[in-house]
Amino acid sequence: MFETEQERDRMVEHIKDLIGRKRYAELRDELLPMEAADIALLCADLDEDVPLVFRLLPKELAAEVFVELDSDEQELLIRGFSNSELKEVLDELYLDDTVDIVEEMPANVVKRILQHSDPETRKRINEILKYPEDSAGSIMTTEFVDLKKDMTVEDALKRIRRTGPDKETINISFVIDANRRLLGTVSIRTLLLAEDDDVIGDIMDSNVISVQTLDDQEDVARMLSKYDFLALPVVDTENRLVGIVTVDDAIDVLQEEVTEDIEKMAAILPTDKPYLKTGVFETFKVRIPWLLLLMISATFTGQIIAHFESALAAFTVLTAYIPMLMDTGGNCGSQASVTVIRGISLNEIEFSDLPQVIWKELRVSLICGSVLAVANFAKLILVDQILFHNPAVTVTVAFVVCVTLVCTVACAKLVGCSLPMFAKRLGFDPAVMASPFITTIVDAISLLIYFRFTTLILGI
Amino acid sequence: MFETEQERDRMVEHIKDLIGRKRYAELRDELLPMEAADIALLCADLDEDVPLVFRLLPKELAAEVFVELDSDEQELLIRGFSNSELKEVLDELYLDDTVDIVEEMPANVVKRILQHSDPETRKRINEILKYPEDSAGSIMTTEFVDLKKDMTVEDALKRIRRTGPDKETINISFVIDANRRLLGTVSIRTLLLAEDDDVIGDIMDSNVISVQTLDDQEDVARMLSKYDFLALPVVDTENRLVGIVTVDDAIDVLQEEVTEDIEKMAAILPTDKPYLKTGVFETFKVRIPWLLLLMISATFTGQIIAHFESALAAFTVLTAYIPMLMDTGGNCGSQASVTVIRGISLNEIEFSDLPQVIWKELRVSLICGSVLAVANFAKLILVDQILFHNPAVTVTVAFVVCVTLVCTVACAKLVGCSLPMFAKRLGFDPAVMASPFITTIVDAISLLIYFRFTTLILGI
Repeated sequence: MFETEQERDRMVEHIKDLIGRKRYAELRDELLPMEAADIALLCADLDEDVPLVFRLLPKELAAEVFVELDSDEQELLIRGFSNSELKEVLDELYLDDTVDIVEEMPANVVKRILQHSDPETRKRINEILKYPEDSAGSIMTTEFVDLKKDMTVEDALKRIRRTGPDKETINISFVIDANRRLLGTVSIRTLLLAEDDDVIGDIMDSNVISVQTLDDQEDVARMLSKYDFLALPVVDTENRLVGIVTVDDAIDVLQEEVTEDIEKMAAILPTDKPYLKTGVFETFKVRIPWLLLLMISATFTGQIIAHFESALAAFTVLTAYIPMLMDTGGNCGSQASVTVIRGISLNEIEFSDLPQVIWKELRVSLICGSVLAVANFAKLILVDQILFHNPAVTVTVAFVVCVTLVCTVACAKLVGCSLPMFAKRLGFDPAVMASPFITTIVDAISLLIYFRFTTLILGI
Repeated sequence: MFETEQERDRMVEHIKDLIGRKRYAELRDELLPMEAADIALLCADLDEDVPLVFRLLPKELAAEVFVELDSDEQELLIRGFSNSELKEVLDELYLDDTVDIVEEMPANVVKRILQHSDPETRKRINEILKYPEDSAGSIMTTEFVDLKKDMTVEDALKRIRRTGPDKETINISFVIDANRRLLGTVSIRTLLLAEDDDVIGDIMDSNVISVQTLDDQEDVARMLSKYDFLALPVVDTENRLVGIVTVDDAIDVLQEEVTEDIEKMAAILPTDKPYLKTGVFETFKVRIPWLLLLMISATFTGQIIAHFESALAAFTVLTAYIPMLMDTGGNCGSQASVTVIRGISLNEIEFSDLPQVIWKELRVSLICGSVLAVANFAKLILVDQILFHNPAVTVTVAFVVCVTLVCTVACAKLVGCSLPMFAKRLGFDPAVMASPFITTIVDAISLLIYFRFTTLILGI
């Protein structure tokens, strides 16, 4: 674990130095105690030395490091591997990791990987590849411990000892019948605390929660987190156990989904690549659609201003407060919408809570609006009128601006909290209803309110 | 698991019906196969029936449900418990859960809980309570399996069988010396796959990664996720093992921290309560500081407009394009800032990447800006000039607007990507440098550019 960038850079320098002086044994000894994830981090800066470092590692560690590498580094390594090296790495990988790698590689590399996997693995890889992206099937592994319900604890432990080394986890075993239908689960803890001659069927937990292969990976991850499980069984439509999803993969899914939500909230189409690995044109492509749409919507806001041109020409001072009103409206709206969106995605808020949410936002917005209005009134009179001697800023003008502010804040909060909930209800992603979208709507509303009060109170 | 709200509501109705008809045995049989987290969900809608339902459950399940309840429901239950009931629940709880509950309860309830815990537990609770909020110490549990390095595998398994029932996890055991200093870890898998007379010191993993009690809980959670660990040892300054953090708690921490980041990005001070449980005044308090600050900053944007009042009076049509320019600038800035903030929090982007990030954003912004400018030019000429016959929209005006647009987009992207990185470098939270903050800055910049071009090209 490197605490700082500097520490890591020093280690990279040190490794390059050892390689330069051909001190390979020494380098190997330095690498051995490290965690795979840390060696992978170092590899990102080692460039052409990666294959050399990789070949110094014992094959288990090498395989672990391989899994942690970026897909372009993996591709480079695979292209450099001899056939026997490739086979050795593939033999060490867990099935779900192999599938992840296969999904990222170009066709000719995939072909080579499949050629050098044993037939059974090849068949299983192809099966998992068939599941749609983002489904439980696509992230599961088929390497789990299965038991029969008439086994004794002694049999079960023997089976775990025999088959365990190739399984992704032995912390939970899955009990199936002759047709591979899922009957229950039994944890290693239960097995260890039971008597040797207890029967699995008696000690297993038969209230088993499972997911289906086509379930959304995000739901699966949330379920693992909700129930504090270490692994969740995946069944097909006939309740036959086909795989398991483990907690480490669930954490990755949760992180990915959060990134996606955050991207959507910022009006970006979701990507699944790290920022620095995404090309300029790719970044452009995920950003431009919303920008265009929002720009065009904003030009309609401009029409409102154009419509009240004469009022503005008579009271040019009013124009100066447009940015403040629009920004404050936007900020209030985004506060409400983002809070509600996060609440929805954590299952804290449901559509039936709508009246409660609206009532709460209404009260919050009135308090916020009043405080902002008072602060703004003070600023208008003390700074603009008295300090800057601007005679156009009369008490009436200040009053119009502040009343507009209160109404804008209220509208912004109400639009902000309700749109995501309606979106969810209608089957859209609530995250899209975040700041940029809300801002555009609130802008138009706040200007309409502003000009309505202007014509009403100032009598233009 | 309830798939929909409707399903859950039906179940709540059904339970209330059973209670109304005093069919307690039947109710118990319905509840027994459910997961604790689901029963807790039901309790949220069962109101005054919660204590009754709770008393129907066997004590292990009751304790599991208790942990999953909201803190106000927990408080209500504890207040209703007899002393012996309280003791029974407390005996079943894991230490870290008890600590979580103690942290949320008012003083008189805490006193009752501590009175009814056994002295050893009380001492441990008090120790954990001493650690600062958000530290590794505050989320760890002290219930782990410890082994000595000269034990044989047989001894170790015996010890796990004997002490296991009270431990939070038996999947990993921690090897310590006579001074409780951490020597290594050994997984249950390694133990099961080893020979009975192997010695722990020989099979343990001595390259052990640990955290210190005062380390930030977010770093701890990220480490668990990075290394795919199920538990991470927590040591004091003298490397003595004092506790462990398990993966389920790490997931909760990650979720909390994401919520905090999202809140900060939306200019809200972080809270740790679910939305519907937060009072109106509390919500007001976390929202108003940024609103006030941003409103005041936005009034300075207004000064820019006031300064160019004469230009606007001559060309009132220019005012109509202010919202579009400001919004687009804000959207571009927030896209860049949010992408970079997320990259920083996932450790994908570091300060040394700044030149690369800026160079990339510059190119993206030029492409985005050009596309937006072309679209906007077409709209100005085709819609505003030709369709709406607005003679004020000349080709020169359209040109000014579009050149401003390109410059605004570029500035917005550059400010958006660099501010979070500087914030991080200076030790501030980059998440604060998100949309609202960036928008305010970009607003001012875009108006300055707009008026500069206006005076320059239109010669006002």
